[in-house]
Amino acid sequence: MEVCRTVGEVRAAVRRHRERGAKIGFVPTMGYFHEGHLSLMRRARAECGAVVVSIFVNPLQFGPREDLAEYPRDLERDLRMAREVGVDVVFTPADEEMYPPGYCTYVEVLGLTEKLCGLSRPGHFRGVTTVVAKLFNIVQPDVAYFGQKDAQQAVVIQRMVRDLNMPLEVVVLPTVREADGLAMSSRNVYLSPEERQAALVIPRSLARAVEAVKGGERNVAVLREMVRGMIAAEPRAQIDYVEIYGWPDLEPLTVLTDRALLAVAVRFGRARLIDNVVLEV
Amino acid sequence: MEVCRTVGEVRAAVRRHRERGAKIGFVPTMGYFHEGHLSLMRRARAECGAVVVSIFVNPLQFGPREDLAEYPRDLERDLRMAREVGVDVVFTPADEEMYPPGYCTYVEVLGLTEKLCGLSRPGHFRGVTTVVAKLFNIVQPDVAYFGQKDAQQAVVIQRMVRDLNMPLEVVVLPTVREADGLAMSSRNVYLSPEERQAALVIPRSLARAVEAVKGGERNVAVLREMVRGMIAAEPRAQIDYVEIYGWPDLEPLTVLTDRALLAVAVRFGRARLIDNVVLEV
Repeated sequence: MEVCRTVGEVRAAVRRHRERGAKIGFVPTMGYFHEGHLSLMRRARAECGAVVVSIFVNPLQFGPREDLAEYPRDLERDLRMAREVGVDVVFTPADEEMYPPGYCTYVEVLGLTEKLCGLSRPGHFRGVTTVVAKLFNIVQPDVAYFGQKDAQQAVVIQRMVRDLNMPLEVVVLPTVREADGLAMSSRNVYLSPEERQAALVIPRSLARAVEAVKGGERNVAVLREMVRGMIAAEPRAQIDYVEIYGWPDLEPLTVLTDRALLAVAVRFGRARLIDNVVLEV
Repeated sequence: MEVCRTVGEVRAAVRRHRERGAKIGFVPTMGYFHEGHLSLMRRARAECGAVVVSIFVNPLQFGPREDLAEYPRDLERDLRMAREVGVDVVFTPADEEMYPPGYCTYVEVLGLTEKLCGLSRPGHFRGVTTVVAKLFNIVQPDVAYFGQKDAQQAVVIQRMVRDLNMPLEVVVLPTVREADGLAMSSRNVYLSPEERQAALVIPRSLARAVEAVKGGERNVAVLREMVRGMIAAEPRAQIDYVEIYGWPDLEPLTVLTDRALLAVAVRFGRARLIDNVVLEV
């Protein structure tokens, strides 16, 4: 496995794989790997001749009062895990490699980013689309893999790729969960044991909504208030949002007709957790 | 010469040239060719195994009160001229091919775009960088050619390419002028014979500034007022801006020390003409 620090290095590494005819699979990450990341790498490994993973905690997608400084990092452990999965190339650039002095170019998806996490984290998606556009241009993959855990990010990136005619395919894979249902997230390390237990209200409330839809409930406000009420009843939970939008266009809904995204963001102590489920009628 | 209307067609055409090992040269244009465009195509022809030209009057880079509707178009003439120069592929998409319903992604270069034409044409450069990013992703050229006549556009695109790590080289070629010095522009057709004659004050005033610098003048305000005064003395001229900035970073200057861009935008009737010269100390 090659570990590259510069754009030039990773481009040379990818070129060697491309010249031997390999399809290039790419998994962009912020590191501190869990099974969610590994599931993306395994799928890339199964589908592509070469697997490239980036590890970059992108400062541009963190707000001034967010957790950039304390975001968990463990490069040695990440490299070990990537090697075990059979990754070919890891790109882990310094901040200055990605944003040199005088940097001033941004990629922005409007509309889709003006709700959910786009409201609670102004500038977040501009940071995401900018860094992902850069990474796509650097790696030039045939396929890029993202997790459904970040559902809004996934549709925003798919829209960017479609709108800007980026020459690659975006694959979105299911959220990986702990045995008790909590969605895997690098930010779960922020949780105290009590908060970790309390956070189970998130997957439970999502499951309750799925059951209600199965039972015939179609009223979006009713479903939303059911989930909101369950989470609000947990004293350690502080709701950021509980919303239901059409899937995958995130259009406003009052009645479920087809597919809808039930998405939540909830704080437990200093951890802001997100999770979602696609409700299908 | 292949003429392609869709993204799929032009991608297939470029792929055939790439598979035979050709270096891909690309000239993005809004059509209505003059010698300036042709000089870019000839250079691409000399340097590349395949030459792709796009003809697209990009609505996104026109303001609501600008000349989108009357911008001159003559596709038959353009195709004939491109064929004569030896262009391999022309891409001339419909608006809906480039901006399908629901389109919502934009590329923006800050700083460099907040002066000169960026002030008089709000949103113009966002439209330029967005369409050029799309065209680069569609054509995937090795080299793209732009004219120094649009000096600010050239540095904005070079910055976008550098910042977003786009895998191509940008070449900027000199402004092509009529025998009497007027910079070639598709918009020159808007000029009445009297306006055409009056517009010569632009190249004359730029030449006067070059002479003054040769004569030792280093004071930016003096040079700017000299040009402004000459143009203002022409009754048919309506000055949009006359500015001097550092070249190529467009930083503010009070004294010439190295290279500087003297750039002007002037209206004659319904024609808004731009021109520039790089002053060298």
